[in-house]
Amino acid sequence: MSRPQKRATVHDIAAAAGVSRGTVSRVLNGGYVSAEARAAIEAAILEVGYVPNNAARTLKMRRSQAVGFVALEPHSLFLDDPNIGSIMLGANAALSLADHQMVSLVVESQRDTERVARYLSGGFVDGAIVVSARTRDPIIKVIADLGLPAAFVGHPPELSDNIPFVGIDNVGSAQAITARLAASGRRRIGMIAAALDRDSGIDRLTGFKTALGTGYDPALVADVPHYDYGSGAKGMRLLLEREPSIDGVFAASDAIAAGALETLREAGRSVPGDVGVVGFDDSTWAVRCQPQLSTVHQPAKELGSYAAQLVLRQLRGETLEPGGQMLPTPIVWRDSA
Amino acid sequence: MSRPQKRATVHDIAAAAGVSRGTVSRVLNGGYVSAEARAAIEAAILEVGYVPNNAARTLKMRRSQAVGFVALEPHSLFLDDPNIGSIMLGANAALSLADHQMVSLVVESQRDTERVARYLSGGFVDGAIVVSARTRDPIIKVIADLGLPAAFVGHPPELSDNIPFVGIDNVGSAQAITARLAASGRRRIGMIAAALDRDSGIDRLTGFKTALGTGYDPALVADVPHYDYGSGAKGMRLLLEREPSIDGVFAASDAIAAGALETLREAGRSVPGDVGVVGFDDSTWAVRCQPQLSTVHQPAKELGSYAAQLVLRQLRGETLEPGGQMLPTPIVWRDSA
Repeated sequence: MSRPQKRATVHDIAAAAGVSRGTVSRVLNGGYVSAEARAAIEAAILEVGYVPNNAARTLKMRRSQAVGFVALEPHSLFLDDPNIGSIMLGANAALSLADHQMVSLVVESQRDTERVARYLSGGFVDGAIVVSARTRDPIIKVIADLGLPAAFVGHPPELSDNIPFVGIDNVGSAQAITARLAASGRRRIGMIAAALDRDSGIDRLTGFKTALGTGYDPALVADVPHYDYGSGAKGMRLLLEREPSIDGVFAASDAIAAGALETLREAGRSVPGDVGVVGFDDSTWAVRCQPQLSTVHQPAKELGSYAAQLVLRQLRGETLEPGGQMLPTPIVWRDSA
Repeated sequence: MSRPQKRATVHDIAAAAGVSRGTVSRVLNGGYVSAEARAAIEAAILEVGYVPNNAARTLKMRRSQAVGFVALEPHSLFLDDPNIGSIMLGANAALSLADHQMVSLVVESQRDTERVARYLSGGFVDGAIVVSARTRDPIIKVIADLGLPAAFVGHPPELSDNIPFVGIDNVGSAQAITARLAASGRRRIGMIAAALDRDSGIDRLTGFKTALGTGYDPALVADVPHYDYGSGAKGMRLLLEREPSIDGVFAASDAIAAGALETLREAGRSVPGDVGVVGFDDSTWAVRCQPQLSTVHQPAKELGSYAAQLVLRQLRGETLEPGGQMLPTPIVWRDSA
């Protein structure tokens, strides 16, 4: 296998030709530019060795018509996260409509990292969707170095400024559901906060603090490692010990909320009578709990579909603005608060 | 894309050369055979156009070093089945150790079926692991027609007699846990039977009947469509209506058992005091239930790993005996019965 090589980009052409990226894009997409600019751009294309992404028909033999779906942290995604299946099916449906094959790649070990990096740079895929990206992940670096058309699901790491992403507003969503819980008349509201080593965890805690304002009490935050049931059961025990009169809980995920409900049941507290509990995700947990959860709806299928669209648009030669798109996260109010 | 072509097999060479398959295998693997047999086999190899699978080094440019992981029925696998993640990670770990890239392919629509069939026959993968295969699935036909090295997880459909599989003994496992439940002193034992349109569902019901023998009462079988929580809650309501004195339940999956527990709680029946409940899978549901489930352990990770080994052995040129391997399914006895 060859080592990853940096693929020339529209930016390189623009720099070499001394024109804007928009002008380069117009040439690549068959639009109108001055004869002078066109000549400069065509010379620059040869100079930098640019392979146009939008020349799909002429390059058919060099295109795999496949897009990688790269799951980093697969252990937690596939065993704990009830959303990954929906994200995958959403991405697959969008790619399928465009006649692209989604190939899902699991990165669990150092060995996987190296092999997947070779695979991505070996021409087997035309683009990649990356879920659960972390800062300084070698896979992200390979994608960036190659200039492979890509998109992230979720907040991207710093390295990837020029790769678009689709996600949700964790701060705003957490703030909204906490405010709704407070508006239901709860006085002592705590949070079971998880995964404070990553953006989603930090952002949900920030939203919680913002909603409570001066009423925020750091003693009422239980810090647990994972978004899972066991962490929820444990976090709720901590909160009950610290504040027996607690009457509201924002759980950072539905699985955490489910664990918290179990602890509350064991402690003889009724939900929502004694304690109102709200979750986050609107996953299968939300409707399996007793009582069913009031929660934030995370549009998992749409996230996958949107990420696939971001990759397909790049494959069609569009130059996307860097940055992210946030999808709406309506609050679903059921019986737990 | 070319239409699928039948790849010549060791069997074809043996037939053309007039020797046994074992003799052909010895030649292909560099073992000793008579000069006469070797000459006949080498001529036959040319005649049938055989591409040796074990000549990996010389054929490196024609090998992708990738193995497809084909999930049929992805909606139920990825959204309802808590085992698919473990099966995937088990397969990936085994393939990774052998420096093969696992590429997971989702088949949800007719469009997917056609595109995945083209992908499998286009040289993008050297082999395939198929989960949740159904009789007459076009993907299975493509794999069989191509002679692509493959393995099934779970009982294979009829079409695939010459493709090896790895699974569990659903009849024996269901019989064992039902017998254990009966031995705990239960007198009126029912079953929530799911998915009676496929082997696993039918086999679990057969095991249940066998265990109860003359004590089997068909009125105490609730037939529900899916292995999920909602089906379990509904199936338990049916059983309670038909036989209020029911004191034991075998649920065809842990998710079903979890739903049954909820119905029993609503009906004011204690578990295991009034009713003993056992499940099947030993999935994450089993330890999240209250009380935790007595159940059959399904070795999901090992199933994935074993299927990967079956494909890798074929890629190394081994001729596998057709048929299946059953992995052990110990009973895990917890608190629900």
